[in-house]
Amino acid sequence: MQKILILGAGLSASSLIKYLLDRSEEYQWKIRIGDLSLETAQRKINNHPHGEAFLFDVSNLEQCNAEVAQADIVVSMLPASMHFSVAKACVEYGKNMVTASYVSKEIQGLQEQALEKNNIILNEMGVDPGIDHMSAMKVIDRLKSQGAEIIEFYSATGGLVAPKYDNNPWNYKFTWNPRNVVLAGQGTSMYIKNGLYKYIPYHKLFQRLLRTNILNYGEFEMYPNRDSLKYREIYGLANIPSMYRGTIRRPGFSRAWNVFVQLGCTDDTFIIEDSENMTNRQFINSFLKYETNISVEDKLAKYLGIAEDSEIMYRLRWLGVFENTPISLARATPAQILQHILLKKWVLAEDDKDMIVMQHRFVAKMEGKTQEILSSMVVEGSDQTHTAMSKTVGYPVAIATKMILTGQIKARGVKLPIDSCIYEPILSELETLGISFIEEEREI
Amino acid sequence: MQKILILGAGLSASSLIKYLLDRSEEYQWKIRIGDLSLETAQRKINNHPHGEAFLFDVSNLEQCNAEVAQADIVVSMLPASMHFSVAKACVEYGKNMVTASYVSKEIQGLQEQALEKNNIILNEMGVDPGIDHMSAMKVIDRLKSQGAEIIEFYSATGGLVAPKYDNNPWNYKFTWNPRNVVLAGQGTSMYIKNGLYKYIPYHKLFQRLLRTNILNYGEFEMYPNRDSLKYREIYGLANIPSMYRGTIRRPGFSRAWNVFVQLGCTDDTFIIEDSENMTNRQFINSFLKYETNISVEDKLAKYLGIAEDSEIMYRLRWLGVFENTPISLARATPAQILQHILLKKWVLAEDDKDMIVMQHRFVAKMEGKTQEILSSMVVEGSDQTHTAMSKTVGYPVAIATKMILTGQIKARGVKLPIDSCIYEPILSELETLGISFIEEEREI
Repeated sequence: MQKILILGAGLSASSLIKYLLDRSEEYQWKIRIGDLSLETAQRKINNHPHGEAFLFDVSNLEQCNAEVAQADIVVSMLPASMHFSVAKACVEYGKNMVTASYVSKEIQGLQEQALEKNNIILNEMGVDPGIDHMSAMKVIDRLKSQGAEIIEFYSATGGLVAPKYDNNPWNYKFTWNPRNVVLAGQGTSMYIKNGLYKYIPYHKLFQRLLRTNILNYGEFEMYPNRDSLKYREIYGLANIPSMYRGTIRRPGFSRAWNVFVQLGCTDDTFIIEDSENMTNRQFINSFLKYETNISVEDKLAKYLGIAEDSEIMYRLRWLGVFENTPISLARATPAQILQHILLKKWVLAEDDKDMIVMQHRFVAKMEGKTQEILSSMVVEGSDQTHTAMSKTVGYPVAIATKMILTGQIKARGVKLPIDSCIYEPILSELETLGISFIEEEREI
Repeated sequence: MQKILILGAGLSASSLIKYLLDRSEEYQWKIRIGDLSLETAQRKINNHPHGEAFLFDVSNLEQCNAEVAQADIVVSMLPASMHFSVAKACVEYGKNMVTASYVSKEIQGLQEQALEKNNIILNEMGVDPGIDHMSAMKVIDRLKSQGAEIIEFYSATGGLVAPKYDNNPWNYKFTWNPRNVVLAGQGTSMYIKNGLYKYIPYHKLFQRLLRTNILNYGEFEMYPNRDSLKYREIYGLANIPSMYRGTIRRPGFSRAWNVFVQLGCTDDTFIIEDSENMTNRQFINSFLKYETNISVEDKLAKYLGIAEDSEIMYRLRWLGVFENTPISLARATPAQILQHILLKKWVLAEDDKDMIVMQHRFVAKMEGKTQEILSSMVVEGSDQTHTAMSKTVGYPVAIATKMILTGQIKARGVKLPIDSCIYEPILSELETLGISFIEEEREI
C-alpha cells in the first residue's frame, strides 16, 4: 500500500481528502491526515477504512520528520509559512510533495537537493495559484504552436458568492480567509500595458478598475494584483507588451471598499487606543477630522468627496459601520476591528453557495489577423463543505498527488504546473469534475 | 585634562565642535574627533591645538571600545542606528554619553547598567528632539506650578530656508538629509483632540493641515508627526484632552507634496523597471493610467482632481517633473528617483541661509480664565557651515557635554532633557547664543 501523508485538514482540504479517500480502495492507498485538531482530521475521514487521523504540530520537528519518513508522498495544506519545514524533511527523506501555495524563495532553494533525490516538490497546485497557471499555459502553448504572437494577456480570479445567494449590496460574502480579504492589495501593484510599466500604490488600487463580462454571469470588475511583471518570465512571455493579473469582484465593490482604504481602516500595523470601549461609529470617526455639528456620515462623505445618497454610502450604512455597536475587541488593529465588523455581515448563510470565477483574455496576432481569446471558468460550490473554493483548490492537488503516485507525472525538482506534461492530464480530469474553461474567440 | 570623544563630524557636528574647541583652553579639554573621513574631522578641527582627528569606523568594535575607554565623555553624532554600540561601550567602561537622536528601546534597556556605573546617557539633545522638549517642559512646569490645568498642547518644528533666500515656488530647499524629507510621514500619524483619538494614514497626511502665524515671520502650515500620543506621558500630561506634534512648512507646500504621495513617487520598497533609461516625464507617467491622446500633465490633473492652472501644477512644472530629462539612475526606487529630481531644484545656493522655526501652543485653565500661550523660536543660519540646523542641533549637545563635565548636570541613567535641572541651565545658555523663545499670551 502507498502511503499519502496529508498535513492540515482545514476547510480547503475537504474536497482534496474526499477525492483521495474515494479512490483509496482502487489504488490501495493508506491516507494519514494530521491536524492541530484531531477532531477536525477525524471528521474529514469519517471512519473511512483507508484513513487515519493523528494530532499534528508542525513546530514539532521530530514528529514532522518521523511522519514524512514513513510516507510515499506528502500533501501540505498547512498555512503557507509552514511549508518550508515540511519541504526540508521531504528532500531529506527523498519524498515527493504537493502544495497549493506560492513557491517561496526558501523552497525554490531546495531545487538541487530535490533533483539529487529524484523528488518533485510541486507548488501552486490550487486555484490561484494553480488552475490559473495551467489553463493559461494551455492557451499560451497552443497559440505559440500556431505561430501566433501574443501581445496582451490579462488574467483575473475572484472568490464570490453564487448568483442565487448573492443578496447583499456588496455582492460579496466571505468564502475564504477574511483576514486576507481585509489586507488584500497592500503594497504596490505593477503591470505593463503596451510596453509602459504601470505602478499603483495601495491607496489608489481600488479606483483603477477594469470591467469584464464572464460567460452568462454578467458584469464583473477587477483591480490589479501585486506583481504581474514576474509572470512574463514564468509564462514564457518575456517580451509581451501587456501583462496584467487581477482580482475579480462584482461591480461597485471596489469603490466602496476604497472608503476603508482611504480612511486607514485596513491598517494592520498599529493598535487603536482603547479599542475595547469603542463603537463602530467611534472607530470610523477616529479616522475623520475633529469637527462638531456635523454627523459622522456627512463628514465622511465630504472628506472623501462622495455623494451622501450614493451607492457607496448605502453599502457602508448596510454594514453598520455608523452604528453605536460596541466593538469589544481589546488591543486591536484597525484591520482586526474592520474584519470583526465585516464578519457579522458578510457571512455565508447555512445554505449559501460560493463561486469561483476566472477569466483569461489574450490578444494574439496570427496570419495578419488580431484575435481576442477569452477563456473563462465559473465553478459554484456543491454545499458548505465542498465549496467552489475547496474543490478548485483541492482537486488539482489531489489529481497531482494521484498522478505522481501512479507515475503519470514524471517531472522532478521544484516545480510549478506550467509544463504540458503536468497541466494537460490534470485539466482533462478537472473537466470530468465540473471544472472547465469555455473559450470565446473573435477578431478585433 | 578631560577628554571629550566626538564620533561623527558631519554637517550637524560643525557648531558643536566649534563650541567645544572655543572653550577647550578655558576648561582644559582635549577633544578627539573620529569620522569615516579623516579629512572631514581634520577640517572641523582646523589645526586647533586642543583637537585631534582620527579615522573612525563604528563597525570596528575594538576601536570603538578602545576610544570610549580613554574618554571622559562621549558625544555620538553618528546616524541614529549606530548609537547603540557606542552606548554599550559607554556603560561598560563607565563613561557618560550625549546624543541628539531619539532614544531607542535598546538604549533605554541600558538604564540599570548606567545607574550601576553612575553614568548618564543623555538622549534627544538636538533641536527636534531636544530644544522642543526643553522649551515645552519649561512652560509646562511653570503652568503646573501656577496651578493651571493644561487642556491643549500643540508643538511643531520645521527646517526651512530663511525669508531673504526663500525664492522658489515651494518655499522650501533641502537644509537637512534629503532622504528623510522624501520619506517623511510614512506610517500612521496619531494625536488626540478634545479626548478623541485621531489616526491619519500617510496618503491623507498632507491634506490634514493646520495653519499658524509665527512671530513676524508670517503664515505657516503644519501636518501631524507620527505618534503624538506617547508624549502625553513623557511630558507628564497623561490626561490632556488635546495633544499634537507636527512638522512646519510654508503654506501650499503640503498640498503640492501630496501629489507625489498620491501617485506613489515616495515609495521606497520596490525598484522601478529600467529606471536608468527613463526620463522624469516617463517616471511620472508610470504612476498614471494608460491613456493616449492626453498629455501627462492633463492626465495627472484629472487623476488627482487638481485644476490644470493651479498653484500645485505650477510647483510641479517648476520642478521639471514633466520634462524629458533622463534620470540615469540604475535600479532605483521611486523615492530615490524623486530625491534625485528634487536635489537639482531644492538646493541651497552658496550664500543661502536656512531657518529653524518652532512653536508651542498651550491652552490652560487658571483661576477661572482660559489662556492661550504661544512660545515661538526662529533661528536663522549664520553661514553654510553654522546653519540654523547645525546650531540648534549642536549647541544643546555641546552645552550638555560641558555641564556634565563640570558637574552642573548631576542626573544619572538613560535620560531625556525633561527635568528642570537639565533644561533650565541649557535654555539659559542657548539664549546667549541667539536661540531663544518668545512667549505671547492672551485670554480666549
